[in-house]
Amino acid sequence: MSIVSDAPTPQKVELTDEEIFGAHIDGKLSVELTSPLESQRDLSIAYTPGVAQVSRAIAADETLAARYTWTNRLVVVVSDGTAVLGLGDIGPRASLPVMEGKSALFKKFAGLNSIPLVLDTKDPDEIVETLIRLRPSFGAVNLEDISAPRCFEIEKRVIEALDCPVMHDDQHGTAIVVLAALKGAVKVQGRDITKLRVVISGAGAAGVACTNILLAAGVEDVTVLDSKGIVSADRADLTGIKTDLAARTNPADRRGGMIEALDGADVFVGVSAGTVPEEIVATMADDAIVFALSNPDPEIHPEVAAKHVGIVATGRSDYPNQINNVLAFPGVFKGALDAGARRITEGMKLAAAEAILSVVGDELAVDKIVPSPLDPRVAPAVAEAVAAAARAEGVTD
Amino acid sequence: MSIVSDAPTPQKVELTDEEIFGAHIDGKLSVELTSPLESQRDLSIAYTPGVAQVSRAIAADETLAARYTWTNRLVVVVSDGTAVLGLGDIGPRASLPVMEGKSALFKKFAGLNSIPLVLDTKDPDEIVETLIRLRPSFGAVNLEDISAPRCFEIEKRVIEALDCPVMHDDQHGTAIVVLAALKGAVKVQGRDITKLRVVISGAGAAGVACTNILLAAGVEDVTVLDSKGIVSADRADLTGIKTDLAARTNPADRRGGMIEALDGADVFVGVSAGTVPEEIVATMADDAIVFALSNPDPEIHPEVAAKHVGIVATGRSDYPNQINNVLAFPGVFKGALDAGARRITEGMKLAAAEAILSVVGDELAVDKIVPSPLDPRVAPAVAEAVAAAARAEGVTD
Repeated sequence: MSIVSDAPTPQKVELTDEEIFGAHIDGKLSVELTSPLESQRDLSIAYTPGVAQVSRAIAADETLAARYTWTNRLVVVVSDGTAVLGLGDIGPRASLPVMEGKSALFKKFAGLNSIPLVLDTKDPDEIVETLIRLRPSFGAVNLEDISAPRCFEIEKRVIEALDCPVMHDDQHGTAIVVLAALKGAVKVQGRDITKLRVVISGAGAAGVACTNILLAAGVEDVTVLDSKGIVSADRADLTGIKTDLAARTNPADRRGGMIEALDGADVFVGVSAGTVPEEIVATMADDAIVFALSNPDPEIHPEVAAKHVGIVATGRSDYPNQINNVLAFPGVFKGALDAGARRITEGMKLAAAEAILSVVGDELAVDKIVPSPLDPRVAPAVAEAVAAAARAEGVTD
Repeated sequence: MSIVSDAPTPQKVELTDEEIFGAHIDGKLSVELTSPLESQRDLSIAYTPGVAQVSRAIAADETLAARYTWTNRLVVVVSDGTAVLGLGDIGPRASLPVMEGKSALFKKFAGLNSIPLVLDTKDPDEIVETLIRLRPSFGAVNLEDISAPRCFEIEKRVIEALDCPVMHDDQHGTAIVVLAALKGAVKVQGRDITKLRVVISGAGAAGVACTNILLAAGVEDVTVLDSKGIVSADRADLTGIKTDLAARTNPADRRGGMIEALDGADVFVGVSAGTVPEEIVATMADDAIVFALSNPDPEIHPEVAAKHVGIVATGRSDYPNQINNVLAFPGVFKGALDAGARRITEGMKLAAAEAILSVVGDELAVDKIVPSPLDPRVAPAVAEAVAAAARAEGVTD
């Protein structure tokens, strides 16, 4: 148990309602023209009669749509609004500010065009079918804030149905950045990632994906908690996905809840909307690592956690060590599209995590286990690594 | 029969393939951010944690989505690619350059954001259903290049299903501008629009809508031609829509084809992909008016038609008197959205035609019966007239 922490007390950015709402009036996105439309000649080129030449050419060879339209590098951010931030099922309209923000980040960090498409249906069949019908309109699909366990089936089916990069960011974006951050944390502390005892709170989209990527990265002892406690093989209430999780995790066969799980644990990864009391965090092992990633309210306040553990990170942009998907998704999609990848593989995700860590370089410290989300070097590094992995795996056109 | 024409010989804009294709590389649209995303503070406002405030507010009151997202002023340009320009059923991918051009024009002339959504289905049920599911993502629907007679049913059903402005532009955009141009032409010639004998070639989307708006404007003698000839009540091969047309048109009960229809006619409106031989145009009445609107190839070359008639117009941007929908649709949608209109009425369309004509003002001439499509005064004038009509009709929120 660590009472004195190495982590500095983070500074919070104070925001007023006026500032936040003012910045959202009429939304955060704009569609602009890539060439001027000032003269009769411009109009003749971009519209009739010139445009007919381009349409004729694509009609003769559909692959030319990738070259002569914007769709090939357009990412649609798709949500049904069922699992938005820590807010839950708030519906498609209320999810829009988040989706616009996501589209803005795609442009800002990867130079990719992106638009939100929010759906007034929660039915997996209808969501998959809608994307199949819209397929000619986009180049990649970022599934966002879709509730578990529906998100697993929907992502699997959209990947199978479409010949383009598809990723549910709440799963894989989160998992990539958690892996990068954990690699950064153990590097700071000089420890071996495979020997850590990791507790993941949350068996939803992010929890399942984090478990999978940590196991793939060689972590031997992962314990997952859902709202009922430790996901263990003896429980009679497990869904198919949790039964699968139980079989691959909890090697010490622990039973119980958060108290039993965190006692002596090295790492806490919070990806639920729950809270963790200070006194339980205080029972973790020396130099413990806490990733309290629930948004907008972390499972434990980072300033409180910092009193007891070695390294603290949150998902928020107003504290240091922001484990935010923005470190992954822009570069992952850019790399996949740059390489002409038809899908996003496990190897591409692991390559993305390595690339994120590589950018931190010599600046690595307890309060800098990942690069700043604003670091312009991250997305290009991730894109390059992901594109190389895609080519190496032969999933490109 | 007029041999000597008042119309000047138009000058064509010459375009090279290189110029056209070069301007289309990577498409014609870009999504941009409306506010900077440079600092940690910017990120905290536009994304987590600030964005959660806005999502919470919309979850509590869904009407706030209109204020705090881009969707309220976003027009989706929707096509299945079944009736593109004069090119026909070239499919959704090949239709994209046209749809991108349309979206670009919405921005350029009305300041509205617009994105193309092209659908990989021709089934009316599926098209309507897809737009219902996407409803929270946009503020208005511009249906585009959907083949007749499917377009009539699809537009009717989308209007019934959605509580926002919906317009099939190939029908109503064309009709509005044709009416404006015909009003301009008769004003130049000092004639009475109601007494003209009008022949409309084409009983598809544009032909039906032009017929309807001209009848609504008081034209008493309209004759419609389809590929089999004059649409007359005695024909056994008429669809429901054409049976309806036959009952409301052709008051002199003419029979036959283009030769019989155009002999002595005052106005030819070509909205088919067909051609009209010079010798038939030469049989029209003195000071005849020819609108050869098929794109990209007019039914008769404007320079040829000009030898025989008083006023010539085409749909092309490289000749004078361009009867192009761009004079209508940006302002119609802007006016409807400005007024908070829940639909686009007949009165709003007639108001749009009057507003287009009003912009020509004193410049009205045989080679200027409509404003230039590049005239920046048109869309604001149309928007103002359309919004006023919407408010007068009580179709606003």
